Amino acid sequence: MIQYPTKKKSLQSQGVSTKNRGMSLEHDLNITNEYYRVHEIANVHKKPTPVQVVSVSYPSRNQAKITEAYYKTPSTTDYNGIYRGTYIDFEAKEVTDLHRFSFGRIHLHQIEHLRSVVKHQGCAFLIIRFINHDLTFFVPFEKFDQEFKTTTRRSISLAWFESECAIIQNGFTPPIDYLPHVQQWIKEQHEKQY
Amino acid sequence: MIQYPTKKKSLQSQGVSTKNRGMSLEHDLNITNEYYRVHEIANVHKKPTPVQVVSVSYPSRNQAKITEAYYKTPSTTDYNGIYRGTYIDFEAKEVTDLHRFSFGRIHLHQIEHLRSVVKHQGCAFLIIRFINHDLTFFVPFEKFDQEFKTTTRRSISLAWFESECAIIQNGFTPPIDYLPHVQQWIKEQHEKQY
Repeated sequence: MIQYPTKKKSLQSQGVSTKNRGMSLEHDLNITNEYYRVHEIANVHKKPTPVQVVSVSYPSRNQAKITEAYYKTPSTTDYNGIYRGTYIDFEAKEVTDLHRFSFGRIHLHQIEHLRSVVKHQGCAFLIIRFINHDLTFFVPFEKFDQEFKTTTRRSISLAWFESECAIIQNGFTPPIDYLPHVQQWIKEQHEKQY
Repeated sequence: MIQYPTKKKSLQSQGVSTKNRGMSLEHDLNITNEYYRVHEIANVHKKPTPVQVVSVSYPSRNQAKITEAYYKTPSTTDYNGIYRGTYIDFEAKEVTDLHRFSFGRIHLHQIEHLRSVVKHQGCAFLIIRFINHDLTFFVPFEKFDQEFKTTTRRSISLAWFESECAIIQNGFTPPIDYLPHVQQWIKEQHEKQY
């Protein structure tokens, strides 16, 4: 195919990997959490999306059909569970922007929820994937919140994630093995205590 | 009013309290968990009911209206959260039967979920209210599971709960103060370890 000089450069020709395109972060996390559960490594679930049901009909005796309902704003994060006695709680976000994660992507009450988890000694974090770079970061919430509170910008740059946060390597089983990073967090908490 | 001798005795005339009738266990737990959150004692939420959405319409640009959906069987319990670094996970059930709690009221995968929580060192329990007696029990899952595995019956009697489990006293703020029982459980775990 002839590359006409006026043609806008595609991401691929800019050297950006498209390997994981289409396999969403949520999909990867569902498989990962199932892997953790089946192998009894951890018990983490995605919470159902909250729905406000307005009306229900009963087409047959044993079946309830919801005929009118609306999505509600979630009051907490999407994922929580337990790993080696430690409560873990996180939100996962895919970023299409090439250079920054906008604070608009996360609700204020989700930030407040994660602050509360930290206060109660749980492991709170974000998993943020820059899909066009195929980079997935493990973002301890304490670090994120520090930046959120101090920056004057309305976003965090990719460069910040690259310098401050660990990358979760892509894998096959499980696709997104985030627990070693939780383990590292637990270790650091113990070191702070003793 | 004349008490005809043939009239079936009402629960009230049997000395059964009807004080809390109408205030459902779920309602009481929602208020209790909100009380715990506001006072920063614990962070416990009820999970949304899982719904399988089949079709959605967009009556206006910013609104999504679900027009066909069905309730799904929950794969976990209704409540989970964190208290003083401990992961807690429980299911709450109201019992209308006067004398027994039927195992049919709890799904097998919920039992498996709670077993997994115990394995990962979380605090798993049931809150069971016999509404006609106005009695609410804190049922450590380990005890419940022991009975579930060994009994040949398909239910557990009220007498078993009365002899084996603690009663959660009715209160006003919060209406159902279950955390002291969780605290007791944590204490017992520490005693086992050391």
